[in-house]
Amino acid sequence: MNRRIGMSTLLFRSEPRVVSAAAVVAKNENEGSFGGRFDLVLEDDKFGEDSFERAECKMLCTAARLAAERSGLRMQHIRAMLAGDLLNQLITANYAARELGIPYLGLYGACSTMAESLLLGSMLVDGGYCSPVLCCASSHFSTAERQYRFPLEMGTTAPPTAQHTVTGAGAILLSDTETPQPVFSHIVVTAATIGRVIDLGITDMNNMGAAMAPACCDTILAHLEDTGYDADEFDLFVSGDLGAFGSEMLLDLAKKARLDLEGRYLDCGASIYRAEQNFSCGGSGAGCSSVVLASELLGRIERGAVRRMLFLATGALMSPTAGMQGESIPGIAHAVVLERRD
Amino acid sequence: MNRRIGMSTLLFRSEPRVVSAAAVVAKNENEGSFGGRFDLVLEDDKFGEDSFERAECKMLCTAARLAAERSGLRMQHIRAMLAGDLLNQLITANYAARELGIPYLGLYGACSTMAESLLLGSMLVDGGYCSPVLCCASSHFSTAERQYRFPLEMGTTAPPTAQHTVTGAGAILLSDTETPQPVFSHIVVTAATIGRVIDLGITDMNNMGAAMAPACCDTILAHLEDTGYDADEFDLFVSGDLGAFGSEMLLDLAKKARLDLEGRYLDCGASIYRAEQNFSCGGSGAGCSSVVLASELLGRIERGAVRRMLFLATGALMSPTAGMQGESIPGIAHAVVLERRD
Repeated sequence: MNRRIGMSTLLFRSEPRVVSAAAVVAKNENEGSFGGRFDLVLEDDKFGEDSFERAECKMLCTAARLAAERSGLRMQHIRAMLAGDLLNQLITANYAARELGIPYLGLYGACSTMAESLLLGSMLVDGGYCSPVLCCASSHFSTAERQYRFPLEMGTTAPPTAQHTVTGAGAILLSDTETPQPVFSHIVVTAATIGRVIDLGITDMNNMGAAMAPACCDTILAHLEDTGYDADEFDLFVSGDLGAFGSEMLLDLAKKARLDLEGRYLDCGASIYRAEQNFSCGGSGAGCSSVVLASELLGRIERGAVRRMLFLATGALMSPTAGMQGESIPGIAHAVVLERRD
Repeated sequence: MNRRIGMSTLLFRSEPRVVSAAAVVAKNENEGSFGGRFDLVLEDDKFGEDSFERAECKMLCTAARLAAERSGLRMQHIRAMLAGDLLNQLITANYAARELGIPYLGLYGACSTMAESLLLGSMLVDGGYCSPVLCCASSHFSTAERQYRFPLEMGTTAPPTAQHTVTGAGAILLSDTETPQPVFSHIVVTAATIGRVIDLGITDMNNMGAAMAPACCDTILAHLEDTGYDADEFDLFVSGDLGAFGSEMLLDLAKKARLDLEGRYLDCGASIYRAEQNFSCGGSGAGCSSVVLASELLGRIERGAVRRMLFLATGALMSPTAGMQGESIPGIAHAVVLERRD
């Protein structure tokens, strides 16, 4: 593969290993389609803290610690944490990094954070700069709702296109060597594509899927063009949280670009809850794709059910301030290739 | 240098080049100590836009475009932009990335953003992943003040420890090869250190310097320990925006750690304004260190006045929400080594 102008795909030739992961979720998430596969389920959404913000921070710390411990490492063995969340000034990740005391890089990509974190973390490991590193992302329904939409106490009804912010924190540990007791022994990261900000003019804060689908399609096309892969060389394309409506839109956009994803596509947001849970278009939030990847999806790769996956976390770069100033909601999606090695 | 546990310093063995830079500022900044050295000075703080937020976005776009143009490149030649700002959901950087249309990674490190961006950008170039890349950070007095403190219309008086948010956007272009017409031909990035979040319990939003100084000292010590350098092997240690009070605190903390920085130390915040401008403890904001680096400091390296510089951008991870919940303000500082090559 030659480097050329406009190419935004990075190749990780040393194939950094995914050695461990952990997902911490709340009850709603555990009652969904992937119930029973998470590492810790909260008894209540406040996780014993006095605010939802502190609860989210504790979730992220817990996921990070679990991922390290499960692989046989202590926190002081971890060389860096790359993390982000949806809250203003990234308070979840910042205070988690304070608590954990390890070198830290804060990322803001809204719900695209998990892929951004894996992309940069893989580069740290692949380039021989530092290893092992923790890649994390989180969200919490109650912190996000009051920051982005309405106070919970108002009891606002969600419109049909709305998605429910996932209460969850995911952490994935990447390493250049095997750790004392790796949870996974067959998963590597081989490439990643940096997304562009795409905006088709969506202004409805309850229709995030439509704001993100074009960016998701753009990154998939860029990845395939950059790498020369055909779509059918992937067992699974995963998007973060387009939801039911946004997923349909992505499949349509892809079809228009002569790309058939049907039968090899899963959206974490559209899949995480069961229909009978009545969460409109599904889940969203930076925690959504991170917990589904850290549990169900890595499991599928480890056991060989999926051999090559393009994982795209999708972010709606929504801002209440910009919204009030008449701005539309841009979207972004970063992609990471996860593969099985025997 | 051997890799060891706890080490958070990355070495860039291929020595990515700093080929170009641009700094866009407002009148106050141009009336300060580095007046006349910036690339563009705004006539008015709104830059012809209808909101300060849009003005800040236009400043960042302008700095990015100028840095590319000055080196003889077009925007489509730039492989990635790494950027951040102080605003909620990173709206300055997000909308600038939408406007520029190139692959984009959003970073949140408050005022530490410029060093985080250079650290990650250098890794992208050094590892052979993609080049050239733009590293950017911005802030605007009027957008920051109303988001973090009080509406401008209140006319609140600043306490003596306060710093004035710099209205400025800086962009630095890194490349693995010479560009058609490089602005700089002698500057390379050789190493970087990822900072940890440090919190000594400061809760005063008007005393950011004190919140950041301990993190700055921690990163300097980590860097020297990791690399084996002595302090006198650096011509200059630069901190981002500790301000007059925070700088003094840093020198004291360093002295306690048996590190004498006196005579080889500059704080961008404490230096950017002249005393007669009456901006209390000096400048602050992600734009402060980015515009001082992109103008004055790179100039000093290029002409050989400084041969090795440790550039630390310092961030106060302050959050109005966390503050109201009784949290203190953690600090972080990332470091980048800039050197002259003949």
